[in-house]
Amino acid sequence: MSSLDAFTRLEPTEAKSFCNAVFQAAGVAAQTAEQAAAGLWLTSMRGIDSHGIRLLPHYVAGLRGGRLNGRPSYTFTATATATGVLDADHTLGHAAGLTAMGHAIELAESAGIGVVTVFNSSHCGMLATYALEACRHRMMGFAVTHATPRLCSAGGVRPFFGNNPLCITAPMAGEAPFCYDGAQSSITMNEVRRRAALGHALPAGAAADESGAPVTEADRAIQLLGIGDYKGFGLAMGVEILCALLTGMPAGPDVSDMFADSFAEPRRLGTVVGALRIDAFVDPDEFEQRLGDMARRLRAEPPRDPSVPVQVPGDPEKRIEEERRRLGIPISEGDLESLLHLAGELGVEPPSSFRSER
Amino acid sequence: MSSLDAFTRLEPTEAKSFCNAVFQAAGVAAQTAEQAAAGLWLTSMRGIDSHGIRLLPHYVAGLRGGRLNGRPSYTFTATATATGVLDADHTLGHAAGLTAMGHAIELAESAGIGVVTVFNSSHCGMLATYALEACRHRMMGFAVTHATPRLCSAGGVRPFFGNNPLCITAPMAGEAPFCYDGAQSSITMNEVRRRAALGHALPAGAAADESGAPVTEADRAIQLLGIGDYKGFGLAMGVEILCALLTGMPAGPDVSDMFADSFAEPRRLGTVVGALRIDAFVDPDEFEQRLGDMARRLRAEPPRDPSVPVQVPGDPEKRIEEERRRLGIPISEGDLESLLHLAGELGVEPPSSFRSER
Repeated sequence: MSSLDAFTRLEPTEAKSFCNAVFQAAGVAAQTAEQAAAGLWLTSMRGIDSHGIRLLPHYVAGLRGGRLNGRPSYTFTATATATGVLDADHTLGHAAGLTAMGHAIELAESAGIGVVTVFNSSHCGMLATYALEACRHRMMGFAVTHATPRLCSAGGVRPFFGNNPLCITAPMAGEAPFCYDGAQSSITMNEVRRRAALGHALPAGAAADESGAPVTEADRAIQLLGIGDYKGFGLAMGVEILCALLTGMPAGPDVSDMFADSFAEPRRLGTVVGALRIDAFVDPDEFEQRLGDMARRLRAEPPRDPSVPVQVPGDPEKRIEEERRRLGIPISEGDLESLLHLAGELGVEPPSSFRSER
Repeated sequence: MSSLDAFTRLEPTEAKSFCNAVFQAAGVAAQTAEQAAAGLWLTSMRGIDSHGIRLLPHYVAGLRGGRLNGRPSYTFTATATATGVLDADHTLGHAAGLTAMGHAIELAESAGIGVVTVFNSSHCGMLATYALEACRHRMMGFAVTHATPRLCSAGGVRPFFGNNPLCITAPMAGEAPFCYDGAQSSITMNEVRRRAALGHALPAGAAADESGAPVTEADRAIQLLGIGDYKGFGLAMGVEILCALLTGMPAGPDVSDMFADSFAEPRRLGTVVGALRIDAFVDPDEFEQRLGDMARRLRAEPPRDPSVPVQVPGDPEKRIEEERRRLGIPISEGDLESLLHLAGELGVEPPSSFRSER
């Protein structure tokens, strides 16, 4: 979402109901539709527009093509007191992730920590969706997933792994939880393409050309570079081990392409979620108070630019969520057109716009 | 260790025995001495010289000053089936970390995963020391620790967190385990100082001056920058939450300075280790085979520089360990002098040099 694009705003509650109605009209079971809608909605509310409700037509295409199963028969197996595996039956990744985190929280209630691997899943979007659930139970949350290979291997010329994100959350006194949710690249391929279209430059060290050399000209970039060079690459491999090898799913270059590959084939992605009970280690009141104090102390640190305070990871998303609760979710005119077209096709009441700005 | 420095090599087995003998002569209990020696030794064997046996005089100074307790009374409390807390009684961090990982592995045997927080600990050096232990039991290993604040906050002008490393390990068929062990900065402050002394430049985006601005002149750098800017900073905060808040230890700017602060005061550091049983998720033979295949496929990827093959995280350390088993552990003449001085003071047989090169 660029400030240069023309956009409309959707009223938040209505946007969520619309997603739910679209999924149900596309044949998705009620609970699955509700979970997937909640995931897409939270993603948009937090400002991660690339993974938010603008992807609704993409998921509907997956449901129509057979890539996604809207009426999953989950199989959850608790394999030890703290561990379990969830066969997601190729359903929407958001529903699978929320279901898995529910099991992880339940395991953690008795074992102190719960770790659940999800297999036969699909694109699960923003990891914070799952990891933040743990905080509602006063637990820390963890989530990792893998993705289409787009990260140039350190010392190589082409991608082997995706920019495999990881997310850590923790409840905080006096405000919404701490949430670090980051991929192992500085920017996304979507952002590279957006800048190429606008003729804008890329940050140094963020993307590479076909020889693996860093480039700042967006139209020459065909792949991403890892944060800290081999470090982002190493973290991406660590996440791949968890999401592909610990789940029995395809790994690295064998991970399917979200857009280019057939919409008739399940993606067979893996996700791993964990919940950790804070009171198994320290007094949770004290933990949450100390974390809140740390965040406030950090924001009071002297800033490099006097007009831009130091931010705690997750602060931009908190600010955007608060703003969007008041002003609505901005959506570009192109994306709105796709949503209205989808609404028409499925006979769903289209969302009314909330406010229009330019 | 620079290739420009004059150095001597120590025979590996003798180097380990020497560390053990020094610790015992400094009053450290037998098992604690053995664990701390094993940790320092493995660190040097893997080429992480900054954290290896050259630090022996530093730890002995800590023991003499009262910062470190060589005869700890550990208190381990299993708080749920998968979780436990270890009071390390201010002993050497290596001994504490190995003891904690032992408990984590035991918890994982029955619960599928085991997570142990360590409090009242001290500098624990290379995290791979602990995380690799899990692989000896065919488990994945995890370790995080916090450090003296040296990482400039994203958008700030001074450090709040250390470059708080994290480590992930996994057993692999046909070769030593996968091991990613990385701090959240591109380089260490030690490396900045070494380059400043030699008049060498720094990589772009690795360190900053007193205004928080990135610099490549090593003598102007006073702090480190996070990998991927705010991403390394966010990961460092995630690690700090685990190591300081989940352990009840001092956090952020309240973490003591390894070198500048009093050697009479315990450092009160926290470390968190975890072990995860692979067979609680998938067939471990298949997991290890797939990981080995992945590593070999990755190394066969087309390299950017035809003379430098693509490496798997941990490959340089594996290569160095193999080399040092044959050739010995290189140690600079200055560091050797300190070790010989220590040996004389404590009446310990000094290590004989193995081979000398320049």
